[in-house]
Amino acid sequence: MRHFINTGDYDRATLETILTHAMTHRGERSTALSGRTVALMFFDSSLRTRASFAVGIAQLGGNSVTFEVGRGTWNLEYQEGVIMDGDKPEHIADAAQVLSRYFDVLAIRCFPSLKRPEEDAADPVIEAFRRYATVPVINLESALYHPCQAMADMLTIRERFGRTEGVRVALAWTPHIKALPTAVPNSFALVAAQLGCRLTIVAPPEFPLPDVVMERLGDVEVVHDQSVLARQDVVYAKSWASLVNYGAPPPARYRDWILTPEKLGSARFLHCLPLRRNVEVTDAVLASAQNDCYDEAENRLHVQKSILQFCLHLI
Amino acid sequence: MRHFINTGDYDRATLETILTHAMTHRGERSTALSGRTVALMFFDSSLRTRASFAVGIAQLGGNSVTFEVGRGTWNLEYQEGVIMDGDKPEHIADAAQVLSRYFDVLAIRCFPSLKRPEEDAADPVIEAFRRYATVPVINLESALYHPCQAMADMLTIRERFGRTEGVRVALAWTPHIKALPTAVPNSFALVAAQLGCRLTIVAPPEFPLPDVVMERLGDVEVVHDQSVLARQDVVYAKSWASLVNYGAPPPARYRDWILTPEKLGSARFLHCLPLRRNVEVTDAVLASAQNDCYDEAENRLHVQKSILQFCLHLI
Amino acid sequence: MRHFINTGDYDRATLETILTHAMTHRGERSTALSGRTVALMFFDSSLRTRASFAVGIAQLGGNSVTFEVGRGTWNLEYQEGVIMDGDKPEHIADAAQVLSRYFDVLAIRCFPSLKRPEEDAADPVIEAFRRYATVPVINLESALYHPCQAMADMLTIRERFGRTEGVRVALAWTPHIKALPTAVPNSFALVAAQLGCRLTIVAPPEFPLPDVVMERLGDVEVVHDQSVLARQDVVYAKSWASLVNYGAPPPARYRDWILTPEKLGSARFLHCLPLRRNVEVTDAVLASAQNDCYDEAENRLHVQKSILQFCLHLI
Repeated sequence: MRHFINTGDYDRATLETILTHAMTHRGERSTALSGRTVALMFFDSSLRTRASFAVGIAQLGGNSVTFEVGRGTWNLEYQEGVIMDGDKPEHIADAAQVLSRYFDVLAIRCFPSLKRPEEDAADPVIEAFRRYATVPVINLESALYHPCQAMADMLTIRERFGRTEGVRVALAWTPHIKALPTAVPNSFALVAAQLGCRLTIVAPPEFPLPDVVMERLGDVEVVHDQSVLARQDVVYAKSWASLVNYGAPPPARYRDWILTPEKLGSARFLHCLPLRRNVEVTDAVLASAQNDCYDEAENRLHVQKSILQFCLHLI
Repeated sequence: MRHFINTGDYDRATLETILTHAMTHRGERSTALSGRTVALMFFDSSLRTRASFAVGIAQLGGNSVTFEVGRGTWNLEYQEGVIMDGDKPEHIADAAQVLSRYFDVLAIRCFPSLKRPEEDAADPVIEAFRRYATVPVINLESALYHPCQAMADMLTIRERFGRTEGVRVALAWTPHIKALPTAVPNSFALVAAQLGCRLTIVAPPEFPLPDVVMERLGDVEVVHDQSVLARQDVVYAKSWASLVNYGAPPPARYRDWILTPEKLGSARFLHCLPLRRNVEVTDAVLASAQNDCYDEAENRLHVQKSILQFCLHLI
Repeated sequence: MRHFINTGDYDRATLETILTHAMTHRGERSTALSGRTVALMFFDSSLRTRASFAVGIAQLGGNSVTFEVGRGTWNLEYQEGVIMDGDKPEHIADAAQVLSRYFDVLAIRCFPSLKRPEEDAADPVIEAFRRYATVPVINLESALYHPCQAMADMLTIRERFGRTEGVRVALAWTPHIKALPTAVPNSFALVAAQLGCRLTIVAPPEFPLPDVVMERLGDVEVVHDQSVLARQDVVYAKSWASLVNYGAPPPARYRDWILTPEKLGSARFLHCLPLRRNVEVTDAVLASAQNDCYDEAENRLHVQKSILQFCLHLI
């Protein structure tokens, strides 16, 4: 069973195969998924993920059905053995087994609570689907990982530089008005390390990545000073929550961590989007010729078509 | 015009034809619905119904469009002659006539209010669609009936026992934290009687089925004692609202009506889902080899594909 | 780039070409949109628009993906240069550029605020999409215009009378419990004038159309007396907001502007729907043989299929 929940579940050769397929099949229209249907289940909001999966599945001749859990579709319990007398009328154990009878793939978005760090660190919703589904599960961003985004990031870097090996990438924390999940930086850092990038994490001291990720990264460089950004090939801008003061918005004193053209130097600019202009990044960065974030978003489409076919043993 | 609103609208031979078609066409991919589109209109939440209809329509080469009434789509008035100065900006008379111009089938989910028993007993929303639609209407669970679920139930029994005639089935009330509609038990009891099952209704005295259903059932056995369950071939577990204390949650004194493996004996277990584990049924029942509720859910897909084709005079 | 944002962007010959195509291709099933996908983005509720676009796209062999902005999909900012520290986490500048990478057409519904008249008069959301999208934008009803509705209206008139030239049409204000947008009357009046109808606007004095529309209409007849209605070929009934008392519900003293069979005389009845029965129009008007509003709704489907193909240079 080929789930796609965390790039760390696969070796470098497998990830490279998927990226190569995405590069050689850009814009492909086919009937690869003819007669197949993919469930797109969103516990949380989405624009790019929803759009790019729906379009990609259609371009491969398949069908998708979108669910918004808790809105139009029953809320789902994930704890084992619980007496279900609360606000969740159905258990993932049952929903996952039933949906596996209808769909060929279950694709799930389930953000962290950002309230209970231990719970979030267990990635409970996506792991419940992994346990009970009898068809492949694709992670559309869980509490801990966003592997499809990370693969699109690597595809963008590989297209821009002809390789990922040795490319100098900074994962650059940005200010924000809210505490955001760490799934994007976690998966970006992991896959960058897996594919041989020279990774630097640039963030204030209160903003480390989770232990489970840092352990996998080994001796990655972490600095608390944005002056390194201009020496990179790629600056991957992203805000994420403090693990020190879990769930609290970033302190106002870090507002000057906003990314500007001066800090960016000649590096390429990536961001997963959505992006709060003039809070995380200035309009000028987005208007510059170094902005690759729309190519990056487009690459979601291309790489996800390859991931779907990988999960179904079609490549 | 072939609506599918209540199994009671059709004779046994017709229902058997649909079941036989479903058995012989399991997993069929075809172009039977090519160029056709089905509206899936939900006044209330859904997982299985939405998934199984969308997937089934896709497997037959058709298209579906899902609406959530009152959320993204205008709320609909169903009373005749009313001055529409309230919170419902459109009348079903108009919506049904318009949608009939776009779609080949209108499929509608509309739960009861559980507040006004006389209104619920008139099944006003689905009946308004029956009155005004100029294309077939399929009931996705109305105030009174859930015929697609009932057909999936009978398909499951027929597959398990090779027949429905003479199979001993208990419709077994379960405790719950909320008052639930009677549509599922109503339609299960009706179709079980129509297809020759030996039906027993097992529920506390305050939980009769509505008069309109009991009259159709004739002299069905009703008992208030769960000890009969273990003598059945099939136990169909389900909670439903008290008609005596309409809309109130079941009293706490009935919590021990929870279904356990001991009560189940060697009977097969069915439940329409969603299910509150350890309130209605223990985890042990679901983990047992007697649990057929996932096959039952899967059979929604198979039988609904046949119902769609029946409504369109394709079988 | 062929956007379809306002009929006023095109000359009469182009609009006639689209109408003629719609008449000659009624009910067409084709593969014209095979491999193409259309985004249907709703900032506001919809029934007919959503249904008719989804069905029409399917009938042409294409795919659509529906988004409800702010519900399941991120809320979108449209102001330029703003510091995005409010409740809108993504800018249309970014969303439009990204969605243009996935979709072949972006179709957008974005009602006016009915709070800030100057802002509404700038039609800011649809204009932001026009500015940033790199694929055609279709207006599904913006603050100012509803061109697809207006084209369906003209198609209905042309089918009924064999022509639009010289047909006497009244745009007839109706009472309502809420302030409604002017997009429908604006676009109806504009296209009626463009296609040679003899237009009369019939409304209380506080209910003029916006200056931007009146300027385009030239010396159109405006009367404040419903007695002219019975002398028309077509009465197009519709409520809209007062520009004098912006955003306020129509005053109760105008409740007797309800349209009745007596006022209608022998004119044909059109209304874009949804319609509040017995507030805007009596049940008797809808029950009469002069009611063409269901044909009008159906024509949304036919004309929009032509508009889609026009935008994609397929006709």
